[in-house]
Amino acid sequence: MKKFINNIDTLIDESLSGFTKAHSDIVELNPQPHFIKRINPSKSGKVAVISGGGSGHEPLHAGFVGTGMLDAACPGQVFTSPTPDQMMDAAQAVENGGGILFIVKNYAGDVMNFEIASEMIDFPNETVLIDDDVSLPKNHSTGRRGVAGTLIVEKIVGAAAENGVDLPTCKSLGDRVNEVTASMGVALSSCTVPAIGKPTFELADDEIEMGVGIHGERGHETIKMRSANDIVTQICEAIDKDLKPQKGQLGLLHVNGFGATPLLELHLVYNIAAEYWGQKGINISRSLVGNYTTSLDMAGCSITLSLLDEELIKYWDAPVHTANLRWGC
Amino acid sequence: MKKFINNIDTLIDESLSGFTKAHSDIVELNPQPHFIKRINPSKSGKVAVISGGGSGHEPLHAGFVGTGMLDAACPGQVFTSPTPDQMMDAAQAVENGGGILFIVKNYAGDVMNFEIASEMIDFPNETVLIDDDVSLPKNHSTGRRGVAGTLIVEKIVGAAAENGVDLPTCKSLGDRVNEVTASMGVALSSCTVPAIGKPTFELADDEIEMGVGIHGERGHETIKMRSANDIVTQICEAIDKDLKPQKGQLGLLHVNGFGATPLLELHLVYNIAAEYWGQKGINISRSLVGNYTTSLDMAGCSITLSLLDEELIKYWDAPVHTANLRWGC
Repeated sequence: MKKFINNIDTLIDESLSGFTKAHSDIVELNPQPHFIKRINPSKSGKVAVISGGGSGHEPLHAGFVGTGMLDAACPGQVFTSPTPDQMMDAAQAVENGGGILFIVKNYAGDVMNFEIASEMIDFPNETVLIDDDVSLPKNHSTGRRGVAGTLIVEKIVGAAAENGVDLPTCKSLGDRVNEVTASMGVALSSCTVPAIGKPTFELADDEIEMGVGIHGERGHETIKMRSANDIVTQICEAIDKDLKPQKGQLGLLHVNGFGATPLLELHLVYNIAAEYWGQKGINISRSLVGNYTTSLDMAGCSITLSLLDEELIKYWDAPVHTANLRWGC
Repeated sequence: MKKFINNIDTLIDESLSGFTKAHSDIVELNPQPHFIKRINPSKSGKVAVISGGGSGHEPLHAGFVGTGMLDAACPGQVFTSPTPDQMMDAAQAVENGGGILFIVKNYAGDVMNFEIASEMIDFPNETVLIDDDVSLPKNHSTGRRGVAGTLIVEKIVGAAAENGVDLPTCKSLGDRVNEVTASMGVALSSCTVPAIGKPTFELADDEIEMGVGIHGERGHETIKMRSANDIVTQICEAIDKDLKPQKGQLGLLHVNGFGATPLLELHLVYNIAAEYWGQKGINISRSLVGNYTTSLDMAGCSITLSLLDEELIKYWDAPVHTANLRWGC
């Protein structure tokens, strides 16, 4: 394993320190327990939006802390849930009279620890659970995983909160975005967790993993390598079958790199996916292509489709000023 | 080789098509010959800024076409210079009465083809040659390579041009930014050019390549893997020796990922580099961390330091609206 590391035990500390130094106009780091919080003060009565999860998915979530998106992010160790004290202290730091909305990816550890924090804090709070990964059936024992659609929920709910929308409405808006969002990923290679030092899973030189999770969880099928057209079509068909978009609907198409796949290829994937949805009569009116919800150094990508309406477009387009998503301000 | 590709011959076409679809509010593609041009019309008399080079370094250069940066970008095949007809047609398309400034990375093919275009077009034009890579000696036979510092020249000169600065002044400004900018890279792995299908160079499991070029050119030293502190210090010392920044000077610190290195590690690298320059008395007042000048799927990164003054800061901070660099508008 070759990585830019001094010591496994200080990796997250050093990385967060670098992140907050590089973006000291937007965020600050609470060192103990770890959380990143926005610097720009929020209006009194604003719902505070908090997310978090294991590290290794950067820029998710810390890269989305700032005006118009998250008020705080709680990073765990690599691929490991943050602990409840992180969410509790973050809530204490950013609550501003409007209550707390937690945005949580559906993984057992995250769900449990955010639930504990939710019960322990004295502020009104709600949780939006993200489960956009259609590679697992809807009746899967632990439910579906939350993957790249998380960013879309964070952006839209973050904009609503910034615009003074109240806690119950932010909660129902977040649930609604989650319901109209579907994602699926494919790995061309495994990732390597620094503390483990070897690939999470094995893939032959001619194999790819369809439906892979963002921690390298095996998907629903290991298949032979094939053309980009075939891979992308297979993913889009799975999304289509699940989300059932109707002709004429507006869509946000997000092609997300897992970390080691060049933009050159991600744009090619986008091109195929955009053609696919165009042929289905979906009007792709918003797009996002790049590395946003990564899996360390995994090669591969995911495709996410969110169905939009006027309200969702308004909040997607609203100004955002974070380290890794920035427009309109 | 596992990549998202249909056909090597159509890779660039399909990727550019996806890029321009995803960013149709900012850029448009001229299909034959290939160039990307900004959509937002420029003010009459504005200097048109054009760059280009081999593909495989995305988002450089097409991702920086838009208001406040490049007027057009000419992409070649992977790691291959664009041809003069691309630059000539791009110049024809974006010239608006202020002449053309070409920004060219110092590689023999790029230099030759941009020179031909420069001689063939009827508009007044100047060229800024970028050679920020300090891993080669100043008296190297073909000169030093142009690497991640290119983006900084493009941003600053692009802002000056947008502000109505004339051609000779844009040219001297670009030369000045190049002179105060120094970069050096390190590879932890090779990249794989799609048409070749195997790694460009070999590195043992415990080796890294110091001073690597952005096409996988061997650097000045293959060394044993070591701590991030040691690697970053060695790079910063090379930059320090060359650039000779003075105590109290302002700096822009850019940590650039080559494609397959996670942000988690790039932020850790930034942390070490920022500490290094802080101890030298350099005031790092601007930062950029991420994958900007990539080498396909290479693991590794480069560090760039630009010395700033009030004028350069003003242009760095000026509004920019491109696919991959966006602030202030």
